[in-house]
Amino acid sequence: MRFVEKLLNISRKHHSLVCVGLDTDRERLPPHLLEESDPIFAFNQKIIDATSDLVCAYKPNLAFYEAYGSEGWNALKKTCEYIPETIPIILDAKRGDIGNTAKLYARALFEKLKGDAVTVNPYMGKDALLPFLEYEDRCTFVLCLTSNQGALDFQLSQVDGRPLYEMVIEKVLSWNQKNNCGLVVGATFPERLKRIRGMAPFLPLLIPGVGAQGGDIASVVKFGTDKNGELAIINSSRSILYASSEKDFAQAARNQTVKLRDLINLYRKR
Amino acid sequence: MRFVEKLLNISRKHHSLVCVGLDTDRERLPPHLLEESDPIFAFNQKIIDATSDLVCAYKPNLAFYEAYGSEGWNALKKTCEYIPETIPIILDAKRGDIGNTAKLYARALFEKLKGDAVTVNPYMGKDALLPFLEYEDRCTFVLCLTSNQGALDFQLSQVDGRPLYEMVIEKVLSWNQKNNCGLVVGATFPERLKRIRGMAPFLPLLIPGVGAQGGDIASVVKFGTDKNGELAIINSSRSILYASSEKDFAQAARNQTVKLRDLINLYRKR
Repeated sequence: MRFVEKLLNISRKHHSLVCVGLDTDRERLPPHLLEESDPIFAFNQKIIDATSDLVCAYKPNLAFYEAYGSEGWNALKKTCEYIPETIPIILDAKRGDIGNTAKLYARALFEKLKGDAVTVNPYMGKDALLPFLEYEDRCTFVLCLTSNQGALDFQLSQVDGRPLYEMVIEKVLSWNQKNNCGLVVGATFPERLKRIRGMAPFLPLLIPGVGAQGGDIASVVKFGTDKNGELAIINSSRSILYASSEKDFAQAARNQTVKLRDLINLYRKR
Repeated sequence: MRFVEKLLNISRKHHSLVCVGLDTDRERLPPHLLEESDPIFAFNQKIIDATSDLVCAYKPNLAFYEAYGSEGWNALKKTCEYIPETIPIILDAKRGDIGNTAKLYARALFEKLKGDAVTVNPYMGKDALLPFLEYEDRCTFVLCLTSNQGALDFQLSQVDGRPLYEMVIEKVLSWNQKNNCGLVVGATFPERLKRIRGMAPFLPLLIPGVGAQGGDIASVVKFGTDKNGELAIINSSRSILYASSEKDFAQAARNQTVKLRDLINLYRKR
């Protein structure tokens, strides 16, 4: 099944645009979990159990696993295997390298970890992305306009009369021969999100930056969804994962996810 | 010891600007190594033994290890530990993510793997690089102008009258408060390399793209080195690693490294 189909299926079934970012930081785990043999996986397992009927996707960020070396890699692999088959996994890796190297990253992310989608960095251009795009049933989300302060450094620079990130969108649209591209657009620029959705009406948008990073949900939903109120994947990580640092963390994460899902649905076109 | 000092020490001792890229591809290993319990590490060990008196740095590209999951990660860790203390390790990871995530990548690369230097991607701007720059004695090489075809897509776009990669150089110079930045500049654009060295006379330049990718060595050396004929790290991977696919691969790699070192030295200012 192609990524967008899988996404729409689960998003409709769960009536949800929420993606839970599995940015699991060992230092922020509830203390009682540290006794487990694999605390990171134990935490993820409980978060997944508590939220898997509420989300349209999970998005582990690889940095959080790499920080623990081969142990972290194993925790990530087990997590990916644990996520129910019907829910897309977006591996947030932001990779980008020359062709023969990109091929290996694509293999690691799509084959070893069995991700349904990945995030990639556009700076090195088309040949750095092609090996990902060859996986027809997966989705490659290209960084476009990110939610951090540093987005101002290059992404908003004017190139031939439009910001660099719009040039990225134009290129991605031209590379989208197999209909398997998406864009990463931070929730922190709602006005720009509107124009981005206008330029790419049919691409799935991965939108991080609500919650801890403070993006405004009403505008994100209004401007980020497509004409059917779909195809926006709204990610929240820290405010869900660390809603409580006690034994009730999974229930607290569930409550937070319900809240976010319902708030988003309040603003969705129907 | 700071990175540049470590680099100059070994570069002078070995009279070499050669960096061997440890892009070890399991599929290209000499067949007899496949019987080893960790073929990738066994290969690296022999390559290091055969070249460690000839180089100024080693540069493993993380993709080649990630492609083998936790097993690959272990091979990389063992390789980093095996490289002699006096030779800088440049971890070619091309990472770039928002601040709290970048901090974890920095920790993985500088602390877990004990890299002396890393490569990072500038697209997400300053706050994505700051966590790396906080490691004062290490070096952060920022992608500037890469050696692949895709460099044309964005890096050469005109931003306020100069190409985007020149804007990257200006920013990197302004972020270089701790004198621990470098630039990645492909060997495939010698004319541009000249101007880049002019803009950044004191930065170490990591120059991939000679050998398999076909960069012209005379111009790379002439334009890429500083006024003393130093501070250029000229990387070759495939043409050294796979000089032979037989039992003599290590000797063949050595011969190839000697050849490259001597060819480079022929063109160096003295």
